[in-house]
Amino acid sequence: MNAYPSRLLEEAVNEFSKLPGVGRKTALRLVLHLLRQSPVDAEKFGHAIIALHKGIHYCEECNNICEGRLCNICQDDRRDHGLVCIVEDIRDVMAIENTGQYRGVYHVLGGIISPMDGIGPNQLNLEKLPGRIENNNVREVIMALSTTMEGDTTVFYISKKLRNFNILITTIARGIAVGGELEYADEITLGRSIVNRTPYEQSAVK
Amino acid sequence: MNAYPSRLLEEAVNEFSKLPGVGRKTALRLVLHLLRQSPVDAEKFGHAIIALHKGIHYCEECNNICEGRLCNICQDDRRDHGLVCIVEDIRDVMAIENTGQYRGVYHVLGGIISPMDGIGPNQLNLEKLPGRIENNNVREVIMALSTTMEGDTTVFYISKKLRNFNILITTIARGIAVGGELEYADEITLGRSIVNRTPYEQSAVK
Repeated sequence: MNAYPSRLLEEAVNEFSKLPGVGRKTALRLVLHLLRQSPVDAEKFGHAIIALHKGIHYCEECNNICEGRLCNICQDDRRDHGLVCIVEDIRDVMAIENTGQYRGVYHVLGGIISPMDGIGPNQLNLEKLPGRIENNNVREVIMALSTTMEGDTTVFYISKKLRNFNILITTIARGIAVGGELEYADEITLGRSIVNRTPYEQSAVK
Repeated sequence: MNAYPSRLLEEAVNEFSKLPGVGRKTALRLVLHLLRQSPVDAEKFGHAIIALHKGIHYCEECNNICEGRLCNICQDDRRDHGLVCIVEDIRDVMAIENTGQYRGVYHVLGGIISPMDGIGPNQLNLEKLPGRIENNNVREVIMALSTTMEGDTTVFYISKKLRNFNILITTIARGIAVGGELEYADEITLGRSIVNRTPYEQSAVK
């Protein structure tokens, strides 16, 4: 039982507690924090949330977030449109963009195959992928998905689907993190990093 | 550097990351979660936040949250208005209300004295307290603040301020939690619980 002193407070707590990882106690703490802010700041917060769905679209080409028809990356002619990197969601796009090491384009699945969560291949943004590969003369597809059961299943499914295209399918390298210590690495990662060892000149971080 | 694919996304992330305990990575996760919800749900969330400041007021008597002039507790004639419990914020009111053991009224400070955070006695809701004590013939003031340096300082300050009133000032009991094991209690708590021992009949949890 929780007797909220105000219905509006309770409603705001209800909304916050729908967010992932936010329980009712945390939600109340966040709402009380907002109440301590100026009304202008709280309104700005509310309007930013409402504006999200109104203004944000998904790129027709790669499913990345954008505000027009195509995202900045797909619009950019200097990027290599023959190289497509398949990722789970836009956080992965941002993470790879931040490395400054990738000049190709992306294909955002919007999830990975996870029967436990009821997500099958049909829920993913996969329909347009074969068309993209044909139209843009794609020569390589890089799988940049998590090394989990779900990630591996998704890589397997997509690679089977792309079997008939004359393209190279690669996965990002798995191994010891830069700066990581060997003794703390798990055996599978360490084992993979030995099997997939690279020539010394190639492995230097530039 | 973080290249957000959309300005609206970046603004929503900025707003979320102003919340306490929410960093930019968590903020992005929350915003992407909202984007996956239906536009109707996201709008409801936004409107609940905007409604907060518009609809919520503070009780003129005790500073609790309410939607009118007085909160439900201060309006309730069946409550004992001669017994005032001083608490830091409305979460404490809710916690004490949930015990079902208290029939008096509250006085919500809206904070505690904390020089480190720049909060002095003037930032607290203390002005109206002497007036309340006189007008309502208050006979007892219960201090229900945290046992921290800040809490103790605040208790000391308030008790000095109320020195000239003919009232009883009490603090909530400190001791071993119900269900708690002696061997895991810290020495100060255990020491206090021995000094402030209660007659057996009185200590039973009803």
